[in-house]
Amino acid sequence: MGEREKILGRVRDALGDARGTEVEVPRDYRRRLTEDVAAGRADVLALFTERLADHRATVRHVGGDELATTLAAALWGREAKEIIVPADLPYGWLAELDGVRALADSAMTDTATLRAVDGVVTGCAVAIAQTGTIVLDGGRAQGRRALTLVPAHHLCVVHADQVVGTVPEAVSRVDPYRPLTWISGPTATGALGPPRVTGMHGPRSLEVLVVED
Amino acid sequence: MGEREKILGRVRDALGDARGTEVEVPRDYRRRLTEDVAAGRADVLALFTERLADHRATVRHVGGDELATTLAAALWGREAKEIIVPADLPYGWLAELDGVRALADSAMTDTATLRAVDGVVTGCAVAIAQTGTIVLDGGRAQGRRALTLVPAHHLCVVHADQVVGTVPEAVSRVDPYRPLTWISGPTATGALGPPRVTGMHGPRSLEVLVVED
Repeated sequence: MGEREKILGRVRDALGDARGTEVEVPRDYRRRLTEDVAAGRADVLALFTERLADHRATVRHVGGDELATTLAAALWGREAKEIIVPADLPYGWLAELDGVRALADSAMTDTATLRAVDGVVTGCAVAIAQTGTIVLDGGRAQGRRALTLVPAHHLCVVHADQVVGTVPEAVSRVDPYRPLTWISGPTATGALGPPRVTGMHGPRSLEVLVVED
Repeated sequence: MGEREKILGRVRDALGDARGTEVEVPRDYRRRLTEDVAAGRADVLALFTERLADHRATVRHVGGDELATTLAAALWGREAKEIIVPADLPYGWLAELDGVRALADSAMTDTATLRAVDGVVTGCAVAIAQTGTIVLDGGRAQGRRALTLVPAHHLCVVHADQVVGTVPEAVSRVDPYRPLTWISGPTATGALGPPRVTGMHGPRSLEVLVVED
């Protein structure tokens, strides 16, 4: 018997009767917000905003034509001098960035640069009202994972139609085969024991601009 | 008999026997480049470049990582101080625009502004090697029609995989229900009689950056 067969044999023994048994996964979790909450888009956005605030994220609602100026003002307010963005970020978002230099991320950008900048600006794939979570899947305007995991400040633009009610709704909108980043407020860790400590790694502050058209 | 019926009756009389006759449209035009030309992408790009030059457009081939610097250099070379771009142009294209102000086009931009700027930068939907034509359909990075019909200079970024061999191939790639702009070199007119006069209206110069990755 070869080494491979020996190992597989041991695996089979360990599994015993459990082998091949179909595990029933409970699916009775909530798939949608209760009807009265889901009734209006306004309620979903209000819930999202409330939950984001619970996570100590800054949230602002803006009209599409105010996005560029609000985004610039947010960065001026933080005295940001240099930010980084995914190369495919829509130019219009940054059109009013007077005095703030925006680097376009590329394969050549090293981690030292990501640490040195005053923040990163991205879009998102989908956002979840009930948990105040933003999900990135590396698609348009989102960039690679390191881009939003290293810089100390993350400014994220969320379009109102990207906000869904619940986690199952969000899961059905993203591609599960892509590397996903789920963001619920500034980075935090429970590894040091309770209480939960924020800002130990990655973005220590999260600012969200919700664009309503 | 009402006015409507009278008119329809006249139309029917005028059509006579031709009414309802199916017209046979000849479809024996060339749908693809001959095999030896279509064999290599390089040949398609070479043909596109040659035909663009025939139209008196400036053409440059750049790698993806050189796009931002080449684009900036092209604008510096024209002493452009202010350009306009579609709001969804990828930020990375303009990341090196030192000293050139880029306005993001919006519904509020008036024609006077489009006339005053030193040029417009866009992408395209598809490009045709055999005719040296660039087609815009208002999709991503292309903007509305006025944006590329009014400014005096048009700098267009064409990705190598957007270049097809023939007109039928291009037609199959664009949405016929969208307003299309077909650009074969700087604007020209034959309305004043031969010879064809260039630059009577719209972009008097066309500069194309072909991005090969």
